Amino acid sequence: MNSPKPSVSLALFRSGIDTQQEPVIYLRSDSPVCRAEGFRSQSRVRVSTVDESVIATLCVVNPVSLKENGNWIEPGQAAVSEAAWRMLKLSGGEKASITHTKAVDSVTYVRGKLYGKTFTKAGLKAIVDDVVAGRYTDIQIAAFVAACTSSNLSVEETIFMTEAMVDAGQRLTWSKQPVLDKHCIGGLPGNRTTPIVVAIVAACGLIIPKTSSRAITSPAGTADTMSALTPVDLSLEEITAVVEKEGGCIVWGGAVNLSPADDLFIRVERALNLDSEGQLVASVISKKLAAGSTHVVVDIPFGATAKMREYSAAQMLKSRLEEVGHRLGLTVKCLLTNGDQPVGWGVGPSLEALDILSVLKNESHAPNDLRERALTIAGELLEMGGASVLGQGYTLAEQTLRSGRAWQKFEAICLAQGGLFEPKVGEHCHNILAQRSGVLTYINNRFVSKLAKLLGAPNSMGAGIRFKVKLGEKVEKGDLLLSLFAETTGELAYALEFLDGHPDEILIGDELV
Amino acid sequence: MNSPKPSVSLALFRSGIDTQQEPVIYLRSDSPVCRAEGFRSQSRVRVSTVDESVIATLCVVNPVSLKENGNWIEPGQAAVSEAAWRMLKLSGGEKASITHTKAVDSVTYVRGKLYGKTFTKAGLKAIVDDVVAGRYTDIQIAAFVAACTSSNLSVEETIFMTEAMVDAGQRLTWSKQPVLDKHCIGGLPGNRTTPIVVAIVAACGLIIPKTSSRAITSPAGTADTMSALTPVDLSLEEITAVVEKEGGCIVWGGAVNLSPADDLFIRVERALNLDSEGQLVASVISKKLAAGSTHVVVDIPFGATAKMREYSAAQMLKSRLEEVGHRLGLTVKCLLTNGDQPVGWGVGPSLEALDILSVLKNESHAPNDLRERALTIAGELLEMGGASVLGQGYTLAEQTLRSGRAWQKFEAICLAQGGLFEPKVGEHCHNILAQRSGVLTYINNRFVSKLAKLLGAPNSMGAGIRFKVKLGEKVEKGDLLLSLFAETTGELAYALEFLDGHPDEILIGDELV
Repeated sequence: MNSPKPSVSLALFRSGIDTQQEPVIYLRSDSPVCRAEGFRSQSRVRVSTVDESVIATLCVVNPVSLKENGNWIEPGQAAVSEAAWRMLKLSGGEKASITHTKAVDSVTYVRGKLYGKTFTKAGLKAIVDDVVAGRYTDIQIAAFVAACTSSNLSVEETIFMTEAMVDAGQRLTWSKQPVLDKHCIGGLPGNRTTPIVVAIVAACGLIIPKTSSRAITSPAGTADTMSALTPVDLSLEEITAVVEKEGGCIVWGGAVNLSPADDLFIRVERALNLDSEGQLVASVISKKLAAGSTHVVVDIPFGATAKMREYSAAQMLKSRLEEVGHRLGLTVKCLLTNGDQPVGWGVGPSLEALDILSVLKNESHAPNDLRERALTIAGELLEMGGASVLGQGYTLAEQTLRSGRAWQKFEAICLAQGGLFEPKVGEHCHNILAQRSGVLTYINNRFVSKLAKLLGAPNSMGAGIRFKVKLGEKVEKGDLLLSLFAETTGELAYALEFLDGHPDEILIGDELV
Repeated sequence: MNSPKPSVSLALFRSGIDTQQEPVIYLRSDSPVCRAEGFRSQSRVRVSTVDESVIATLCVVNPVSLKENGNWIEPGQAAVSEAAWRMLKLSGGEKASITHTKAVDSVTYVRGKLYGKTFTKAGLKAIVDDVVAGRYTDIQIAAFVAACTSSNLSVEETIFMTEAMVDAGQRLTWSKQPVLDKHCIGGLPGNRTTPIVVAIVAACGLIIPKTSSRAITSPAGTADTMSALTPVDLSLEEITAVVEKEGGCIVWGGAVNLSPADDLFIRVERALNLDSEGQLVASVISKKLAAGSTHVVVDIPFGATAKMREYSAAQMLKSRLEEVGHRLGLTVKCLLTNGDQPVGWGVGPSLEALDILSVLKNESHAPNDLRERALTIAGELLEMGGASVLGQGYTLAEQTLRSGRAWQKFEAICLAQGGLFEPKVGEHCHNILAQRSGVLTYINNRFVSKLAKLLGAPNSMGAGIRFKVKLGEKVEKGDLLLSLFAETTGELAYALEFLDGHPDEILIGDELV
């Protein structure tokens, strides 16, 4: 049986419609290709030019409405969304064929997992490869993410997934070893130790090529915060040059295609405010392996409103990370840390960036909790990397910070990455005052994150919260508790409405006698 | 704290862009509302005119591209997709305000379920209400569907979900009782007994107001097949009139807002090829309760490649359906039936409609398996409804069919619904011949469904498969096994390519001695 292959081609042009990561093609319903191929809206179709090919979502457009709107798509043409324009590397007028896509076979494995089966190595590889190739719809990625959350991944499944994620992208190699790295599992607003840790470790002569993610469920990831200070979207060549010169970098991992599946999963995880243990472990370890790291310290904050609520769950994650790392040749050391309240004063990219600068510059108002956490992690890394004898890492880290060598190194890294910027906070500000006198007894981290996100973080760099008080500190009625910052009045209004509706998430109690 | 409410309004017009069920609004990135509110693409926004309001997905459009495309969205305007045009009941030029939406709190319950918690009654009600109000994105619905699949719903959860689904829509009441109904859990291509059953039961003087779904994972649902024969999108008033006059109807349930959540879940379940036991039970029972039914027969086919593969699973579903029905005041009787191969000759809306007509007209080539299954179900209903004594239902059903009274009743119902159409099969046909002599030993139902879907079913009414041979029948090399029908050459080619790649899904074996 031979397959007749119809081949009708259309001239592509740029619609200017922004659909985020999703490539979309807009086709007249009376176009010959639409009629011949039996296309319907929301179908997934393959769009192929001479040089490039993507799978896109189809939107069929009614020619009657088009006629009323100046016939902006003419017969023989098809419009593409901004993502499709980029992915197909178009300049306008290129001819493309539009054809049916093959059914995505690997969705069978997602379904199987939801029905209680175990993922095989081949199954996870097929899923990850299909996701990276853009063959999954958002609905399918969401089902995969939910399947991994619901019946959690075993150690074997996590290892398979990690390997598949590493294989699906680039892998960096470094001429010197050990290659150090750190990671925080997140969930604690403002816990932005990475830039300080990298500066200290690199200042002590060790290699620490740090790639970071954008926020998953938080109002800022390290890559978001660092982008308030320096360019983070570096190419592989640029990263290599920065690390060769300065020993360290702090860049966005997504820009260099390290474990690219991770960023695709994260987009959906963010929309669902979900990230499961198995995916968390695969995400962390795959990024570290792809970055060529040999030794990693992982910060696991736990507390009633942190990502890890229970000590036992934090311990389980610790052992899972250390085991999967070990099985794949990576030395992992996890630190369980206090997660009762936000770290530093600021929450949101620019506000956190200001905290980082004040710690690095040893300023008097620098947040002491952020400083202590960074020194602890840096100390561990200095010992793992052999820059310090066991037990002396913290002291070396503290000396490096206090002497100004960490700040000099941070400046040098930023300049090597393309410049050091002044962080700007949102121009719309609203102060929240204490309604009574007493002691600050409770801050819900999840509430703080949601509030900062409603203010516009992380996409609005200047949006977020600046705290004035820490848990256990005394306040008088009318004292400033915190300030809200937004880049638009709409977002500020929306956040205030949310705050009004949730009076019990930041509490002032009676003073302890 | 007061919330400043910015209010900028834009003139809406029809883009003609078909995005299926999803309402989309296209906004210039330089529009004042976009800038003031800090909107980004893919945000969910509330679009409110004086009379109506929907939550829509936002697509921001670049004014530079717009200028090149004849400025089809002018400053002060916003374009809407076909779904948004319908839902907002627009005629063009209406002013609308576009504002941020509230965070959807009920997603917390979906997340909780994925992390192993049990759904509460209030939680499921909040989820179902939010889905019906259009507050969930496809990603969020997918996570909910996956959560229900993965850790299956308990009896209590299923009851809560069923009640929430009934409450979210209209509920029919009938002046006479009992009100009969039937349902098939699906998974068996061509198993289209409903129209025959309704005709027989109504011809015997009982009330059977049948509402059916569109296909979930199959190439045709009863509503799809019936729409090849008669209008099925009837209003509540029209349905009532048909049933008052003829005692029965066969309509699409979605058109009358009975358990509207079901149709929204089904769209995502179809994309994932998933429907879980809990959701299946809630779907069936909620539709029946909303339709005002008192007695229901449910057909549960089981077989190696049916939806129910194991007798034990079919038994479990039977007892779950009967229990949930009983708890909610509905008498349910489940029949476990053979699911080894497709039923009738045709698979796909028009091809199945032709089988139905031949059974009703007592034609010599009518498929006997379809006839027998319909008589068995009708017989049970006649006994439940008191039209026949116990043990005599099948005989009464057979007499009603053979006498032509069922066919007369079917014609009358179709005419009351708006007309009886001639089903049309796709104009592009390809015959598949036996490659060897022997006996037909195996047909994979799932493969048959997928093949029919690739041919374009159910959206292309004339697309599908017509079998010529049943399991156990002898064939000679070169005999016609089956014919493929499509409405476009593209779909036919794609299906043939798929068939070529899967040679072992329809097997001819050695003749048994």
